Amino acid sequence: MRLLLLSNSTTQGYGYLEHALNDIKSFFGNSTKKIAFVPYAGVTVKWDDYESKVASVFTKLGYEIASIHRGDPEKIIDSADAIAVGGGNTFNLLKTVYDNGLNDLIYDKVIAGMPYIGWSAGSNLACPTIRTTNDMPIVEPLSFNALNLVPFQINPHYLDAHPEGHHGETREQRILEFLELNKDIFVCGLREGSIFELNGTDLKLLGDKNVRIFKFNTEPFELNNKSDFSFLMNRD
Amino acid sequence: MRLLLLSNSTTQGYGYLEHALNDIKSFFGNSTKKIAFVPYAGVTVKWDDYESKVASVFTKLGYEIASIHRGDPEKIIDSADAIAVGGGNTFNLLKTVYDNGLNDLIYDKVIAGMPYIGWSAGSNLACPTIRTTNDMPIVEPLSFNALNLVPFQINPHYLDAHPEGHHGETREQRILEFLELNKDIFVCGLREGSIFELNGTDLKLLGDKNVRIFKFNTEPFELNNKSDFSFLMNRD
Repeated sequence: MRLLLLSNSTTQGYGYLEHALNDIKSFFGNSTKKIAFVPYAGVTVKWDDYESKVASVFTKLGYEIASIHRGDPEKIIDSADAIAVGGGNTFNLLKTVYDNGLNDLIYDKVIAGMPYIGWSAGSNLACPTIRTTNDMPIVEPLSFNALNLVPFQINPHYLDAHPEGHHGETREQRILEFLELNKDIFVCGLREGSIFELNGTDLKLLGDKNVRIFKFNTEPFELNNKSDFSFLMNRD
Repeated sequence: MRLLLLSNSTTQGYGYLEHALNDIKSFFGNSTKKIAFVPYAGVTVKWDDYESKVASVFTKLGYEIASIHRGDPEKIIDSADAIAVGGGNTFNLLKTVYDNGLNDLIYDKVIAGMPYIGWSAGSNLACPTIRTTNDMPIVEPLSFNALNLVPFQINPHYLDAHPEGHHGETREQRILEFLELNKDIFVCGLREGSIFELNGTDLKLLGDKNVRIFKFNTEPFELNNKSDFSFLMNRD
C-alpha cells in the first residue's frame, strides 16, 4: 500500500500544494500518468473549479487529473493509475463517498497497490474514522467510519496556538476528549507542512516539523522525520 | 417557552458562569427551586465533579442542582422546576441524550414551560441540529438532529480572530459552508459573553457584544442588544 497524507494544501509563503511538489513528484514518479481526483470535500467551490485548481498543480508535474464528478466515478477510478482526495469539509467528503457507494472500491484499489494522496480532509478519509477532523458537521454522513487504510487517526492542521481571548477548547483538549472515548488508538497531530508517506508498511514523516502523538493515559510526545513510526502501523 | 442560551461558561476576567450570574438570577427568579442538570457534554471531567462545579454557582443564587446521572433521569427531570444543560462536547451530549431516550421528554417539558438554560454545547442542543457546533466529532450520535426548541442555529464561542500562521478554515468560512448545504436556516454567531433569552416568542440578546447573523445568499450582518430578533423565531 502506498499513501501520501498531507496535513494541508496551503502553507505560509507557498502557493496551493507548492510546499509538497517535490514529495508528490517523488511519490508518484514516472509510472503514474492519470490520477482520479475526488472533489467531494469542496463545498463552496464548484467541483469543476476545484478540478482546475488541482489539475494546474499536477499537470506541471506531468500528471493528468480526472475528477470523478465528471462521469461514472467507478469507471474513472478504474481507468486511473492513482487517486487524489482533496481537502475541504470532511463530513461532506465522507457523506458523498458513501452516497456514491465508493468506500469499498477505493479501499480495494488502494489495498491492491493504487497510490493514494490526500490532503486535510483527504487525509482524514484514510483513517479508521473521521472522529479527529477539525471540520464543522455541516452534513450527516451515513457513519463516521472512514477508509481505515491506516490504523491510527490524523488530526490535520494541528496547531499549538490558541486564539487570544478565546475560551473554547484547545486542540489538545479536544484530542484528549477523543482519547477518553477512544482509548485504543493513536492520534497524530500533523502540523501544517507535514506529510506522512507510507510505502508498504514503512511509514515516514516528511517535513521539518515534529508530529505530536497522543494516546490514552500516555503523556503526549513529539517525534520527528528521523523517528521510527512502525508502532503506528500495528493492528492488534 | 423560556430559554437562556449562553455562548460559553467562562469569559476573560470572570470565574465559571460568573459573567452571567445576574442574567441567570433574573431568568429563574424566586419561583425556581430545583434545577435538573444534564452533565452529558462532560468528557474528561467526572460527572460528579461537573455537578459540584455547577452546583457551587447555582447554590449561591439560591437554586438546588440535581444531576440526572445520579438516578433515573426522567424522575429527576420530573421532580425539577427547570433544566440546565452544561457545555463540553456536543457530540457526546447529544449521543447520551439519545442513548437515554430523553429527547422527547426534555422537549415536551420545555415546550410546556419548564425553563431551560444551556451554555456552549447546551445551547447547541436547543437548536434544530448540532451542525454548527465547533466540537470534534469524538463519538457518533444516533443523528445530528437536536431538540429544535428554536428554529435557528447557534454557533457558540463565535470568534473573528484566526490563529496566526494557521491555514484551516476561518469560523466564517465554516459557517458559509454550512449555509451552502443548509440554505433555509439562520445561523447566529454568538460571541463569548453573549446570551440569547427567550420568553414566549420574545427573543432578546443580552450582553454588550454584537451577534453576527448568517443566511445563505445574504451578506452577514451584525445586530445588538437593542435589535428586533423576532425574524429568527419564524417557522415557515
